[in-house]
Amino acid sequence: MELEELIKAKSRIEDYVIKTPLIPLERLENRLGFTPWLKLENLQNIGAFKIRGAMNAALQLSQEELDKGFITASSGNHGRAVAYAAKVLNTKALILLPNTVSQIKHQAIKDLGAQTLLVEPQKRIEIAQQISKEKGLHFIHPFNDMDVIIGQASLGLEILDQHPSTKRIFVPMGGGGLVSGILLAVKAINPDVEVIGLEPAAVPKFSSNLNKETIEAVKESPSIADALLSNKPGSLALEIVRKNLDRLISVEETYIKDAFRLLLEEGKILAEPSSAIGLASILQEGESFYDLEDSVFIISGGNISLDSILKI
Amino acid sequence: MELEELIKAKSRIEDYVIKTPLIPLERLENRLGFTPWLKLENLQNIGAFKIRGAMNAALQLSQEELDKGFITASSGNHGRAVAYAAKVLNTKALILLPNTVSQIKHQAIKDLGAQTLLVEPQKRIEIAQQISKEKGLHFIHPFNDMDVIIGQASLGLEILDQHPSTKRIFVPMGGGGLVSGILLAVKAINPDVEVIGLEPAAVPKFSSNLNKETIEAVKESPSIADALLSNKPGSLALEIVRKNLDRLISVEETYIKDAFRLLLEEGKILAEPSSAIGLASILQEGESFYDLEDSVFIISGGNISLDSILKI
Repeated sequence: MELEELIKAKSRIEDYVIKTPLIPLERLENRLGFTPWLKLENLQNIGAFKIRGAMNAALQLSQEELDKGFITASSGNHGRAVAYAAKVLNTKALILLPNTVSQIKHQAIKDLGAQTLLVEPQKRIEIAQQISKEKGLHFIHPFNDMDVIIGQASLGLEILDQHPSTKRIFVPMGGGGLVSGILLAVKAINPDVEVIGLEPAAVPKFSSNLNKETIEAVKESPSIADALLSNKPGSLALEIVRKNLDRLISVEETYIKDAFRLLLEEGKILAEPSSAIGLASILQEGESFYDLEDSVFIISGGNISLDSILKI
Repeated sequence: MELEELIKAKSRIEDYVIKTPLIPLERLENRLGFTPWLKLENLQNIGAFKIRGAMNAALQLSQEELDKGFITASSGNHGRAVAYAAKVLNTKALILLPNTVSQIKHQAIKDLGAQTLLVEPQKRIEIAQQISKEKGLHFIHPFNDMDVIIGQASLGLEILDQHPSTKRIFVPMGGGGLVSGILLAVKAINPDVEVIGLEPAAVPKFSSNLNKETIEAVKESPSIADALLSNKPGSLALEIVRKNLDRLISVEETYIKDAFRLLLEEGKILAEPSSAIGLASILQEGESFYDLEDSVFIISGGNISLDSILKI
């Protein structure tokens, strides 16, 4: 992938994307032994990084494709991004959501004027592809789409621009769109910057598939990381991850919960549980990292209600 | 006040104070019509800006004064700052708190090893001064002390350093220690930077006393801005405010609640209700401001529990 193409995508979407703050959270030093840098995509437009990929895909469609309307399947944030893209590009959208979707994510999508359909969580992509064929709606895949991945890459470019001495980036992994975008950007600019991918141990789709020839869905257990529950990695993401990822960590639920609490109570940052998985990996693996200065943690989204927080 | 003295104080306390992030919160532009800059003192050591003034006062005491131990009266954050100062300087502290103090603030003070005493809210300073005389404890006033004010001034220096094109700073007013510190710093560097002071309309101590010869306590109504409930301004602060403040706004409760919600739900920032009074003044007075670019809002503290949030 040419760096130039990633830079072009970054300018393509810039009117729709917030350059979110990247802040050092010195307050956590006592607890963690170093000051983590947080990239606050919970302050992004639509409340999550997903707007980057969805807009990059949508902005490259022909008028004819636009007129068909969009369809996608999502745990919530990508759906909201596609609904937003449909609104600003003046077309319609149908968003398939897992029937376990949080109320706050569902409502935000309806507020953007999109139609929604609740389906069985792990069948949502398959059903969306089926409807796409039947009704001629344009399908924007949540992660297994090169334009989406290149859109997410803008986040990697932005981090290295905001904090050039970044040594390491911790990235939550759902289907892998974000981590593969970050890898494309970061390794093109400076291969020495380490990228560490984090999957919930409850849904270990990357570690299970790293050495398999055909991608298989993993059995899943419940997890509070509701944005990371895809049970298979995208094939594009898996290829990029195999070639480039420096380290993969499966993070146990208990650490995700602890890190979520730490981020909220000490860090005063309201984020989705999925966003806490990077700090959670430090709580879990702390001693195996010998130097954590200039480490960036992607706070991927902030779409959570106060009620859900209290339940955790 | 010489700028040099303020700069000296800033270096004096720097080992104990976090240089907190100053971030643009672009997400609020849709709602407010401009992008506010937030100075995140909710991420400060002890969870509030008060550490600046308390440390500046404490670090200038003689060993003999230190050995006496500290006493103060506080709605919570200054008390926590003094308890922290006592801990790091290896002496003891007695903190008088209003009997309405939040559990989270009270517990944090006890966790630092200080003794606490709950008293009637508006008598706390008087009682503390009395005990100080009787027991020979060194009294560190929460706001009416030039060393405390000069410590808070470091926040003004830091803002102009982090965002040199700042045009206007919105400052919450309790007893006035913060606003007078900010005024000293900002007006010494650039008198064109406007400072806007904000008091809860429920406790309008500054507007009531601006033109009076002797300072009188105001009658108070309930307010969620629990850090701004002093019923009289400090005499030092009042003098500085009279000479230098560009605008004083009494902010109604309903706007403080709305702004608190906005900050949490849209801004994803966990802060005390008192910290929302700056944004609240925009919701209240919006149309009277013709240009709000490069406006900084001091998010003064973050010591609030999730239970209290839900009640609001």
